[in-house]
Amino acid sequence: MLLERDLIQSVGFRNVREGDRVTGFQFRVRMPSYRGMAASLIDGIAVRVDDLVDVGADVPRWTFAGRTYTLAELWDGDGVRWPLEEAAIVTVPLDGGLPDGVHEVSIELRLRMSYIPEEHQPSTYRETRHITLSPEAPGGPFEYGVSLYSFMTDYGTVLDLETALAAVADVGATGVEILGEGHIAGYPEPTTEWIDRWFALLEQYSLEPTNYGSWIDTRLHSSGPNARALSAAEGAGMLQRDLRLAKRLGFRFVRPKIGVVSGDLVPDPIWTESVERSLDLAAELDVVICPEIHSPTPIKHPVVDDYIDLIERTGTKHFGLLLDTGIFQDRPIPLRPGELPGQRPAFLDGIAVDPADIADIAKYVVFIQAKFHDIDERLEDQQIPWQPVLQALKDAGYTGYLSSEYEGERIPWRSIEQVRRQHSLIRRIADGLD
Amino acid sequence: MLLERDLIQSVGFRNVREGDRVTGFQFRVRMPSYRGMAASLIDGIAVRVDDLVDVGADVPRWTFAGRTYTLAELWDGDGVRWPLEEAAIVTVPLDGGLPDGVHEVSIELRLRMSYIPEEHQPSTYRETRHITLSPEAPGGPFEYGVSLYSFMTDYGTVLDLETALAAVADVGATGVEILGEGHIAGYPEPTTEWIDRWFALLEQYSLEPTNYGSWIDTRLHSSGPNARALSAAEGAGMLQRDLRLAKRLGFRFVRPKIGVVSGDLVPDPIWTESVERSLDLAAELDVVICPEIHSPTPIKHPVVDDYIDLIERTGTKHFGLLLDTGIFQDRPIPLRPGELPGQRPAFLDGIAVDPADIADIAKYVVFIQAKFHDIDERLEDQQIPWQPVLQALKDAGYTGYLSSEYEGERIPWRSIEQVRRQHSLIRRIADGLD
Repeated sequence: MLLERDLIQSVGFRNVREGDRVTGFQFRVRMPSYRGMAASLIDGIAVRVDDLVDVGADVPRWTFAGRTYTLAELWDGDGVRWPLEEAAIVTVPLDGGLPDGVHEVSIELRLRMSYIPEEHQPSTYRETRHITLSPEAPGGPFEYGVSLYSFMTDYGTVLDLETALAAVADVGATGVEILGEGHIAGYPEPTTEWIDRWFALLEQYSLEPTNYGSWIDTRLHSSGPNARALSAAEGAGMLQRDLRLAKRLGFRFVRPKIGVVSGDLVPDPIWTESVERSLDLAAELDVVICPEIHSPTPIKHPVVDDYIDLIERTGTKHFGLLLDTGIFQDRPIPLRPGELPGQRPAFLDGIAVDPADIADIAKYVVFIQAKFHDIDERLEDQQIPWQPVLQALKDAGYTGYLSSEYEGERIPWRSIEQVRRQHSLIRRIADGLD
Repeated sequence: MLLERDLIQSVGFRNVREGDRVTGFQFRVRMPSYRGMAASLIDGIAVRVDDLVDVGADVPRWTFAGRTYTLAELWDGDGVRWPLEEAAIVTVPLDGGLPDGVHEVSIELRLRMSYIPEEHQPSTYRETRHITLSPEAPGGPFEYGVSLYSFMTDYGTVLDLETALAAVADVGATGVEILGEGHIAGYPEPTTEWIDRWFALLEQYSLEPTNYGSWIDTRLHSSGPNARALSAAEGAGMLQRDLRLAKRLGFRFVRPKIGVVSGDLVPDPIWTESVERSLDLAAELDVVICPEIHSPTPIKHPVVDDYIDLIERTGTKHFGLLLDTGIFQDRPIPLRPGELPGQRPAFLDGIAVDPADIADIAKYVVFIQAKFHDIDERLEDQQIPWQPVLQALKDAGYTGYLSSEYEGERIPWRSIEQVRRQHSLIRRIADGLD
């Protein structure tokens, strides 16, 4: 397990209950010293939240290794420790708790260092951070998940598998989506040890595997003097390898990302045969193959018609559509420093598909990747119009997963908090739908 | 194992040999995509190093899972993969290799993505970074180690234990120093599993445990209505707990950091009895207790005299002095943004102990923490005058460890590269001593 760099952790910020009553809230704090220490060396933590909470250093309770203490109990106790590698849980009493959303949390943490002259004691650490409460809104009729794609670049540099799954579970998500060649160590042949750990972590964090991302790499051998195209049989081989591995890890959906042959992302024609050859296996494994409808491809497009045609032609129940909500983006992704408007693909400004189009294909949609880029501190999404999108999905009868795909700036640790904001936002909107 | 955020990794940058000849150099590159991929999708990597090397994309060789390939071999091959979680090793032929020191390394990496239109292919990733070659200089008569203290704030957020030990070994260090309550999970009672893994990692990375940092927390119960001072018996208990644990993990030295009672860091008087009560155990375990001489305490100081007096009085071979090279700092640590010169302790400007003072106490010195703060791209230390310090140590007959303690800015991942620079610098200087 790894911790976020800020002292105040996003993960773990939640209301707490005693029986049916919400009695306060809690959040996690990373040890600011270079070492762990006996908890009797803590001289308290003052906490401020927006204009809602302002408590003195002796008020919050502290939880270490599953046991909770008052500050006075820590002072008098022995053997309780705040380890360097584990965040302390700080609980603040507040009748009714905090409302859903982003909060400005400030701390003043005091620690006694025996080796620093008294006149400079206690050592005091101040930090203010905007973090998002684990949402309370039920968010029906949808199910909520997170794709580990959200943690791109963070995964493997500041997040390991367990830390990522803990962050997913902490937003109240019940589903986790992965990329096969990305999040499975030793892909395509993970060790038994890795698979055992995968299932142990799923159980520990109460998560179910949802969708598994794969690739049909049509350009696998397209460089060099011996360059050649990928055959449909090879494409089927790739897809079937991932269907089997996905099933082994408990996934119900496999999204093959298919190589393209044109500027508007028309898939390589081998896709049809590669998929058709794999439908019997998909049925046998009870896994649904679901290519994505992804910007710049809109819903009304020959590619989508072809996918639907395959379903109708074969009568399969193991092929469907995956909608990526990036197609509804109706405001531009901000230009990067030095980037000029004409220098990048136009679709980055958003192709703004009308959510009403969902109705036409809803019966084929089996999974939704809830793509987004930036949600600000007021919980406003800067690109995706969630209200009409979610209303259209509900109207169309969709009750499956909304699986977060954060695709914004890759600033270390930012993805964790952005995913929290998205879940808080879309569950609140879902609760308010007609 | 975790990777550094930059595509070009510091760890792993080294010359390569075939037999006795240095035939080139290699470095590691993190996969820039959000997924791992088949290595036949690599379209090469152009590499530039200073004005010394400039090779085209088809020149470097690639190593995956211990096997090395030309680019043409990757194109024609099957089943070789560049996993998301593992850096590729890129080897560039260069007769005689690179000289020790910091180098400006630039890459242009090309990857083929089947799902992006041909007109935008290959995907090209450019990066330039200053990284330090694993030093070739032998650096005698000293031994070289690293304290995991160097990785403060990185440890547990961007470095786990194995990644940290791999970084230590990669500078050619043979010794590793830890802080007991900091780097031992479950301190003071690590699991057998943790201990087994500790020894397995030491063996894997060819490292020996050197010094173990502990604390005599004299203010353990100094807050609250029941506040009380720590007794000498309790201080001895703390020290003995750490002596036993240090021994169990293979350490030869234990540095207790003792609580202080004055502005100039005079230790709590209980230290004498706490130590004397523990000398028999130290002898039994063959572990040397070595408090540190640490800025602002200079070598010529009553505290140091007291330490020496204990050695002379008891005749013990299991108590000695640890020198922290921060006492030789002769230029200021830069002010932080907004910090004014008078607002911080004067010792941050450096107490500039004369390295000639080492001679007076050299026979008692058992370990050296090679404290430093900032080494620039020209390999110049901004605070510590290594040449006279290392000359004085050599003249005094010291042949033990120089154990890095990086104490500069806590920018994520910076510590890794700073430690590399220090080892490159001090080994080069050591080789040039009279």
